[in-house]
Amino acid sequence: MKSEEFRKIGIDYINFIADYFDNIESYPVKSNIKPGDIYSKLDKELPESGINADGFLKEFEEIIMPGITHWQSPNFFAYFPSNNSFESILGELLTSAVGVQGMIWETSPAAAELEEHVMKLLGKAIGLPETFTGVIQDTASTAALCAVLTAREKKTKFESNKKGYSSNRYRAYCSQEAHSSIEKAVKIAGIGSENMIKIPVNDDFSINISAFKLAVENDVKNGFIPLFAVAALGTTGSTAVDSIREVAAVCRKYNIFLHVDAALAGSAMLLPEKRHFLEGIESADSFVFNPHKWLFTNFDCSAYYVKDKSLLIRTFEIMPEYLKTANDDLVNNYRDWGIQLGRRFRSLKLWYVLRGFGLEGLRKIIRQHIDLANQFASKINKETDFELLAPVNFNTVCFRFAPKGHESEFDKLNAKILADVNSSGKIYITHTKLNGQYTLRFVVGVLRTEETHCNNAYNLIREIAYKCISKEIEGKI
Amino acid sequence: MKSEEFRKIGIDYINFIADYFDNIESYPVKSNIKPGDIYSKLDKELPESGINADGFLKEFEEIIMPGITHWQSPNFFAYFPSNNSFESILGELLTSAVGVQGMIWETSPAAAELEEHVMKLLGKAIGLPETFTGVIQDTASTAALCAVLTAREKKTKFESNKKGYSSNRYRAYCSQEAHSSIEKAVKIAGIGSENMIKIPVNDDFSINISAFKLAVENDVKNGFIPLFAVAALGTTGSTAVDSIREVAAVCRKYNIFLHVDAALAGSAMLLPEKRHFLEGIESADSFVFNPHKWLFTNFDCSAYYVKDKSLLIRTFEIMPEYLKTANDDLVNNYRDWGIQLGRRFRSLKLWYVLRGFGLEGLRKIIRQHIDLANQFASKINKETDFELLAPVNFNTVCFRFAPKGHESEFDKLNAKILADVNSSGKIYITHTKLNGQYTLRFVVGVLRTEETHCNNAYNLIREIAYKCISKEIEGKI
Repeated sequence: MKSEEFRKIGIDYINFIADYFDNIESYPVKSNIKPGDIYSKLDKELPESGINADGFLKEFEEIIMPGITHWQSPNFFAYFPSNNSFESILGELLTSAVGVQGMIWETSPAAAELEEHVMKLLGKAIGLPETFTGVIQDTASTAALCAVLTAREKKTKFESNKKGYSSNRYRAYCSQEAHSSIEKAVKIAGIGSENMIKIPVNDDFSINISAFKLAVENDVKNGFIPLFAVAALGTTGSTAVDSIREVAAVCRKYNIFLHVDAALAGSAMLLPEKRHFLEGIESADSFVFNPHKWLFTNFDCSAYYVKDKSLLIRTFEIMPEYLKTANDDLVNNYRDWGIQLGRRFRSLKLWYVLRGFGLEGLRKIIRQHIDLANQFASKINKETDFELLAPVNFNTVCFRFAPKGHESEFDKLNAKILADVNSSGKIYITHTKLNGQYTLRFVVGVLRTEETHCNNAYNLIREIAYKCISKEIEGKI
Repeated sequence: MKSEEFRKIGIDYINFIADYFDNIESYPVKSNIKPGDIYSKLDKELPESGINADGFLKEFEEIIMPGITHWQSPNFFAYFPSNNSFESILGELLTSAVGVQGMIWETSPAAAELEEHVMKLLGKAIGLPETFTGVIQDTASTAALCAVLTAREKKTKFESNKKGYSSNRYRAYCSQEAHSSIEKAVKIAGIGSENMIKIPVNDDFSINISAFKLAVENDVKNGFIPLFAVAALGTTGSTAVDSIREVAAVCRKYNIFLHVDAALAGSAMLLPEKRHFLEGIESADSFVFNPHKWLFTNFDCSAYYVKDKSLLIRTFEIMPEYLKTANDDLVNNYRDWGIQLGRRFRSLKLWYVLRGFGLEGLRKIIRQHIDLANQFASKINKETDFELLAPVNFNTVCFRFAPKGHESEFDKLNAKILADVNSSGKIYITHTKLNGQYTLRFVVGVLRTEETHCNNAYNLIREIAYKCISKEIEGKI
């Protein structure tokens, strides 16, 4: 494709994207195609001669779009959001166009210096102490892996890196409600899932500190070595918040590396009224949150902060001849700050979002999402046949349909509601289990979600729920 | 930003990008700013109110651009290329716009099914046996980590995942010329860098098979357990190629997991005349190459192929309640195929490139790059004062200026040439060490590089080289 053609076609893409957002509510939120439907419609072979890109957009609309689940729809209330914004899309567009490789400062100084700058300002904006240094990772899973590896190397004095990790006596801790990526990281690092101790939770699904203490004490008594702990600032199931202060106290006593996982809720730390959840953060060793979740910066963009960057760098450092440069002592060479050598210029989109929205603009949207979630929860609370299953700390409501007389079938009933709600295409919600109970999750976090979307969603869920039992009464299920 | 504004501003971005490529040769290839130059020019604080995005492009041009090293310039001959193309930029634009999270099939079926389809067709196009299954990773570093973890789990019957990796007796092997990411992966996996045995190379910088055999035999004799080996199909220093067939024979005998790292040169497997380098591939366990290097698909896009996908999946599998779906047995849920849970819809840009260029179109460009590298090498060969330092297998020429009478200063002299060539801003080359000697690398691999660029580069290097010794003769260095 020549540049003239790109100029021409590019405009079609820009308009297609604008149209997409203008009409996003006309698409079924959750794609309801069957496995293989998209696969079977794609060209079976690659062409020998290039084909004109003119047709790509039409193909995208006709073949790909039916298989897209619309994460940017204001009617998307599933999982946690994965937002973008026009500001972010434009930033990503420039990133992909200049196509720089930010592995070291010298291969694109602007990428290294903007990342350093943005991460400093972002940390300040969410109230992290200045002692933390930030680096962009792709996901919170990768950040958790960086954290557990740093913990492993710190504890073994970098001997695991060198001689090999040769113990099955190290222990990692998180609550039963912490994200699965913690266990995954612990497995990858070779600690072993059996050494991943999942601590029981309190009624509000936060970690039970007495149980945590006891687990650590027992481990020490039995010859295990406490290594790593995670405090969740907003669990994935219900956005429960562990007390960082209390977890940190145990960690300090036993010299445990403490990582704080605030993947979603970190964005809410922009709000002074939520900042109390960070209490104790100065004692943590690392902290992660995902601007690609609730800060309108498109995936992937995970903000990882560490208290001692030299530990992180020493964990990953490599220095082959072909990567040595004259400025190595003066600058940040981010290749040594994580798993990957190659790095995209990801700070640009974040820079555009933070300034395009402004801090107060971002606070306003996040506050509105929290308000809408609370409104939704209040309505649930007033219903006879629905119940809340967890406190609403941020933007996530955990609830179920629990009509009297159907007690033995609550799980099945709510699974049926979920399936029917989603197959309507009107909204998309997902589920979890809390206390072993099938739980519906309603998460308000997409940029364009307004009160009417939440109200419509509420009415739809309610309507479908009652339909499910009236059918049941008629013996149809 | 509203959609009307995006329509308006978006056109400016498209034209900016087209202009950028039209005028790319007017920029100094390697940014020559000083550490801190960009940092000091950025806004010191984040604004409270959003600022108009109208000014972002001007800021990008004036503040960011001077800190950009132009990887897309036809005069970029450094490292290995990190290409993009208009086709790829448009694919990435759609990916960022729909903003889907491809962690599981259900969260966007089209992303999962297109990835499966494209990886199948791409594998076929480069001549991989059909027994290999592909998945997109971000980088070859991550792919190497996936490979070594799979090897670890296979060998320990998934006990490392479970009980913890508790041995310092496992051994990994690669040549002294293999990429640093192999050692990094071995460290992360807890095998230990001292158990990363670097095998001496032959004169052509390929792995010495007798030395490899001997190292394995000695290890076995001494109670070590051979675990993992890498065959490089194109080393980073000089694109040397290990014999996959011979490495595989040793691996089969000792039950070693074999990973083939073809990060750059995998793209050249599109050419029948280079396909012989793949001989023995059917015995390998995994294979990686980066379309983001030499296949005009912007970073990141790494094609990772495995012979036994169930081993890979079992290595990473997690199954929390909130990720369970009805179709789990019917589809590819790529969250279990690597480190990260979240995944971008990366197959789209690759799909656009493969069809926009067509296979013959891609072959033509890659062939031309190889021809240009060979032309460059022939000219070097004819010079009295220059010498080639490695065979030219693909697009990379390793050479140095070696004028008689300056033998004791070759390293210094060539480092000076490198610095002067790059600070001219006219081209960008990098260096490595081969046999302990400072080596200049000239890599032809950017989409827009033509014969004139290579000729000009050749003349510039030659001119600067001789300037360096004439100055020296005058006692100025």
